[in-house]
Amino acid sequence: MTASRSQSRSRTGPVVEPPAESAGDVPTASSAAPPRSPKPLSPDRRSFLGRGMSLAGLAVASGAAATVSRAEPLPVPESNKTMGRGIPQTDYGMPIEYEDHFKRTRSDVFVNRQNLSDWSMSPLQYQQGIVTPNGVFFERHHNGVASIDPEQHRLAIHGLVERPLLFTMSDLMRYPSVSRFHFLECSGNTLTDWGEAKSTTVQQSHGLLSCAQWTGIPLAWLLDEAGVKPEGKWVMLEGGDGSGHLRSIPIEKIMDDVMIAYGQNGEMLRAEQGYPLRAIIPGWEGNTNVKWLRRIKVVDQPAHIRGETARYTDPMPDGKWREFSMTMECKSVVTNPSGGMSLKGPGFYEIQGFAWSGNGAITNVDVTVDGGRTWREAMVEGPVLDKCLTRFRYRWNWDGGPAKIASRAVDSTGYVQPTVEDLARAREIVGFVQHHNGVYPWAVSTDGEVTNAIA
Amino acid sequence: MTASRSQSRSRTGPVVEPPAESAGDVPTASSAAPPRSPKPLSPDRRSFLGRGMSLAGLAVASGAAATVSRAEPLPVPESNKTMGRGIPQTDYGMPIEYEDHFKRTRSDVFVNRQNLSDWSMSPLQYQQGIVTPNGVFFERHHNGVASIDPEQHRLAIHGLVERPLLFTMSDLMRYPSVSRFHFLECSGNTLTDWGEAKSTTVQQSHGLLSCAQWTGIPLAWLLDEAGVKPEGKWVMLEGGDGSGHLRSIPIEKIMDDVMIAYGQNGEMLRAEQGYPLRAIIPGWEGNTNVKWLRRIKVVDQPAHIRGETARYTDPMPDGKWREFSMTMECKSVVTNPSGGMSLKGPGFYEIQGFAWSGNGAITNVDVTVDGGRTWREAMVEGPVLDKCLTRFRYRWNWDGGPAKIASRAVDSTGYVQPTVEDLARAREIVGFVQHHNGVYPWAVSTDGEVTNAIA
Repeated sequence: MTASRSQSRSRTGPVVEPPAESAGDVPTASSAAPPRSPKPLSPDRRSFLGRGMSLAGLAVASGAAATVSRAEPLPVPESNKTMGRGIPQTDYGMPIEYEDHFKRTRSDVFVNRQNLSDWSMSPLQYQQGIVTPNGVFFERHHNGVASIDPEQHRLAIHGLVERPLLFTMSDLMRYPSVSRFHFLECSGNTLTDWGEAKSTTVQQSHGLLSCAQWTGIPLAWLLDEAGVKPEGKWVMLEGGDGSGHLRSIPIEKIMDDVMIAYGQNGEMLRAEQGYPLRAIIPGWEGNTNVKWLRRIKVVDQPAHIRGETARYTDPMPDGKWREFSMTMECKSVVTNPSGGMSLKGPGFYEIQGFAWSGNGAITNVDVTVDGGRTWREAMVEGPVLDKCLTRFRYRWNWDGGPAKIASRAVDSTGYVQPTVEDLARAREIVGFVQHHNGVYPWAVSTDGEVTNAIA
Repeated sequence: MTASRSQSRSRTGPVVEPPAESAGDVPTASSAAPPRSPKPLSPDRRSFLGRGMSLAGLAVASGAAATVSRAEPLPVPESNKTMGRGIPQTDYGMPIEYEDHFKRTRSDVFVNRQNLSDWSMSPLQYQQGIVTPNGVFFERHHNGVASIDPEQHRLAIHGLVERPLLFTMSDLMRYPSVSRFHFLECSGNTLTDWGEAKSTTVQQSHGLLSCAQWTGIPLAWLLDEAGVKPEGKWVMLEGGDGSGHLRSIPIEKIMDDVMIAYGQNGEMLRAEQGYPLRAIIPGWEGNTNVKWLRRIKVVDQPAHIRGETARYTDPMPDGKWREFSMTMECKSVVTNPSGGMSLKGPGFYEIQGFAWSGNGAITNVDVTVDGGRTWREAMVEGPVLDKCLTRFRYRWNWDGGPAKIASRAVDSTGYVQPTVEDLARAREIVGFVQHHNGVYPWAVSTDGEVTNAIA
């Protein structure tokens, strides 16, 4: 081992022996300060607690710091003394085994005995940044996941157009393209938590939500080529999957910002995201973003198919059902801390979460830690993009008492995320109620356990 | 099959039978226009060629459209008639099998018989948008890929500080964090193409380049907690891998924008990216972004280790070697079309590529199609972020003659990407010459073949 290691080192470039002091310098530094921690190498947060916290300054951050124990030598880890793995570098890489919990889950509220009409949810509680990795992007399908050979795939544009068009994937890939960051949310996200605390984690309550940079062609460009006739007011999009999934979209939205996308987060769509082609209807409910897209028909009125009448509609207090309420309105949720987590004692925590709006960009997020009695402004992290997940951060010094944490977002139209009570006054809460964008609280108990606190 | 399919449909929600017209409407539309294509369902681009092209307008885009053949019925694909797969939704998802070419490659210019000190390159020619998927993010390691248990990992901060600190990963995860998009480029990227056309593809010539949204802690916050002494002018970063990889960074850069990162593109770092902790030195050469980070020592001068003297230095015309030239200066490259591709006949193409600068944001990119005789401004796609990959697009109507395509970027400091000739006048081209940011041309032959044209 020693010989081969030495040989290996002589081949590598910028390699040095670990400096001699690394085994002793940190711990034996001649400081008058006594060891602060009862356990060797264990952090001590008393320094933070003793110092108090200003919410405005960076000194806060330092509040969470662990001070070093000087009683024990800093060990040189085994990984420094051994050669690493010669990984199979030319494979498509995968996460390390220590991160096995970072996966989609099926619903544990609805027990679904088949997975042909099914969905899986994103691990929002573990996600960082604003881009959801494709490997854990939430998905919903109505008759299984189609597997389509891109060489065989065709996209037709017809109906009320001057020139019906038919495209191969090669045709489409030759077009100019655009790449845009947009969230995608199922209309039924948070469906299981209307006034009753059913979901134990944010993955279960809000995990039908993800965000990607999409690459494709503005549909307006293709329709300009086809020549939409004056009587063309709606556009029907049809998928090439076993359900022939179909939705009708008003021509104004189509011409505004709808994309025909083949790329997601730098690579071609995954099978479950509609490979090789899907619609992206920015800010509108997931099911309108038709996957495995094969047909676009310009029509004079919506199709009023089952998915637009019996499904994806909202019951209203007057006994009628609201159709075509497809925009996902401004919403936010705290992801850290969230259900199933436990806080390790009083002290500093950064509350984090996502805010998003189908009507524009996020302008403000407020956070409460006392169940809505008081609200304070959170930091909204850039880049803040249109119809895109936006991360907010709020520095909190937990005193160890019971707390109730929630967020409330405001978008660029001035719309303020409503409470569940506000929603219940405007809508009828019955059946599979869609479009739950209410303020969503988590309770923190005195022992640090975090649970769903929706009432 | 029929029975189970019908049963499945009755369970699903918004499912409709494929509309009856889908088998006949497009092709049999009563139009006086004759079929334009000799092959059924094959696109015909004559319409584009006949119409000419304005580079400014959107009508251009339509130039690339395929007009539909009306001679044949539009077939209903097999995927519409069958149930899709019930995929293993709770796995970490993978790309579809049709995209097997989207992978990293090892160098085919340097034949490396071991892979302990090795690198693999990103498939830039297939990448979309500005975010490189983690599965194909380029990687370089000096003694294999360390596998580190996050529970065991420690980060020490010591040297010229008031309070030496030691952190567990749990300590660090409890800190406030930030998420920022930054490119990462190896100092040796494009090393094999100084005045000699060795690389056949852009993956080989420029594939030591990727971009991610990184999540972690500004190192300034941790150093503020430790209390840097006035004599602390440099910071040594050491990795916990078998090479004990180490670099020295000036304190000014550290305090400006250096991050201690644990997250990449929404998830925890991959093993080959330094799991569980690495440095992100925005805009500086890849090897300074020390992976498997375990030790940060504040010192009064750089370490001058082998990786800072024998390696990662630049030979200059006066016979001396320039040390600590760690910024990756403004650079760009055309990725589409690029080496190994072939154009399918004259007509419309969107030239695309990446531009980036370690000194700031990209402000302009110009494109030439005639080997540098004339340059025109390309469209730079937002969001344009600091020290981040930026995509440019340029609409080109290829007349079928020989062409020589290249891009030239300008950054927010006013720096203009140099030609190779410019670089050769300022630097000595000998040995493993780093920091090649010269303008990089691709030749297009009359039969559409694209090859490396560096001279």
